[in-house]
Amino acid sequence: MAKPAAPGLRIRRYAAGEWTDVPDAVVTEEPLQLLLDGDPLAVVMRTPGNDIELALGLLFAEGVIRTSLDVRAIRISAEAGETEAGVSVQSVLVESNQVDVNLAGKPRRKLERSMLASSACGVCGTQMIEDLRRDLARLQSGLVVDPALLPPLVDRLRSGQGVFERTGGLHAAGLFDVNGEVVALREDIGRHNAVDKVVGRLLLDGRLPAAEMLLVVSGRAGYEIVQKSIGAGIAIVAAVGAPSSLAVALAREFNQTLVGFLRGERFNVYAGQERLHTSG
Amino acid sequence: MAKPAAPGLRIRRYAAGEWTDVPDAVVTEEPLQLLLDGDPLAVVMRTPGNDIELALGLLFAEGVIRTSLDVRAIRISAEAGETEAGVSVQSVLVESNQVDVNLAGKPRRKLERSMLASSACGVCGTQMIEDLRRDLARLQSGLVVDPALLPPLVDRLRSGQGVFERTGGLHAAGLFDVNGEVVALREDIGRHNAVDKVVGRLLLDGRLPAAEMLLVVSGRAGYEIVQKSIGAGIAIVAAVGAPSSLAVALAREFNQTLVGFLRGERFNVYAGQERLHTSG
Repeated sequence: MAKPAAPGLRIRRYAAGEWTDVPDAVVTEEPLQLLLDGDPLAVVMRTPGNDIELALGLLFAEGVIRTSLDVRAIRISAEAGETEAGVSVQSVLVESNQVDVNLAGKPRRKLERSMLASSACGVCGTQMIEDLRRDLARLQSGLVVDPALLPPLVDRLRSGQGVFERTGGLHAAGLFDVNGEVVALREDIGRHNAVDKVVGRLLLDGRLPAAEMLLVVSGRAGYEIVQKSIGAGIAIVAAVGAPSSLAVALAREFNQTLVGFLRGERFNVYAGQERLHTSG
Repeated sequence: MAKPAAPGLRIRRYAAGEWTDVPDAVVTEEPLQLLLDGDPLAVVMRTPGNDIELALGLLFAEGVIRTSLDVRAIRISAEAGETEAGVSVQSVLVESNQVDVNLAGKPRRKLERSMLASSACGVCGTQMIEDLRRDLARLQSGLVVDPALLPPLVDRLRSGQGVFERTGGLHAAGLFDVNGEVVALREDIGRHNAVDKVVGRLLLDGRLPAAEMLLVVSGRAGYEIVQKSIGAGIAIVAAVGAPSSLAVALAREFNQTLVGFLRGERFNVYAGQERLHTSG
């Protein structure tokens, strides 16, 4: 179903003056065309696989849908072969790399293309940041976890990442429960896509908002990662990489716990440290 | 002028069960509003600094301008304090984080917002990849360099990267000449922005197309990096990280040399190996 690595590539490898001819795998990057009620909405560069989750996660992030009940049916490329238990999926589209989401009613919010772009990458139309924040609510989660819970999560994220190990080219996003068990783990060439996919998974499973979950991302925590996770109600976000200034400001404003540089037995807390507290 | 790191942040650091309170620096991420002839065009999340280069690099990537002669004047936030020798710059805008590019004539191509989004992040409107390719020309550069030229370039990129060392949060893009000398080196929280900035620099200096230059990027080589660099005529692109399948396909189609995993004395060549040849 998923095809994260493109097979059969032969490349030339240079090492200290010597050339060799070797097989190699690279991460698959293909455009996904997202349609809403049959109308082309956007094309997102992504790693194929879990396209339904990606589509629903993106539409959730933009406020177009709130639950899976807002979705009447999904039409998807036949070759993708994706199915979902809780929603009607028709694998009927002849073109590859397409998902058409048919809503049960009107969009919860009218979606402009520029908004979708902002969600995926940090470019938007004429809206400024204040507008992007308008739908976010301050997190009320009373979740408290032992800080020692966090360091092992990176290994769990990595062990679920087969392709990342081979190609070094994928971002991962993992949702964990308060016991450190994996709820959902997704990979994508785009870090935002990986987050959209896990959020889309929760939406399909009726588990949003995710006030009792921790999100761990393999890369950096920029503005959009924090924005999307606040939207999904996620109280604790931990990144292997660095956070940005805007991510820190947003997490502090909306009462999210933001951890960066989660590596080995160490991490930094940039916001909401009160949720990390040794019990007993 | 540039303010890549936000000052004065205090954070909590966790290390093997112990908490300490430490000062920290995070990468600055702020929205830049780009205006074209006074009309709001887009907001790009970026690391402040070299905003004129970023604006012109983006407009070049989208085909709106071809040379600095297409620009009549640039109006920029007074607080940015940026100037350029070759183009009229007025530091007059009262709002911070704005750049207004006034064209000398009509846009070389009518810019839709969705196109700008595609340029920055891999999301576009209804266009598919074929449309995005339409303005690209197959590279004709006869450039050949010794493969031993490449490995030292990563150290040169890193040594120019003060903030990356401190925060781990910035991507870098460096343009080098055939002797391995730095032509331009820019950092940004967005890898596409770093490339736009160096291309914008070349445009301001009248050095496009850059057929005799090598581009080195600190991260991965996705579709957009290859697309933007082909547009700028850059014959050789080398990434410290992994390339994507679409990046490899595009480089092969347009005759660009694409190197990945440039680390230590090693690298992989995914396309255009004939430009890397030991002399003598």
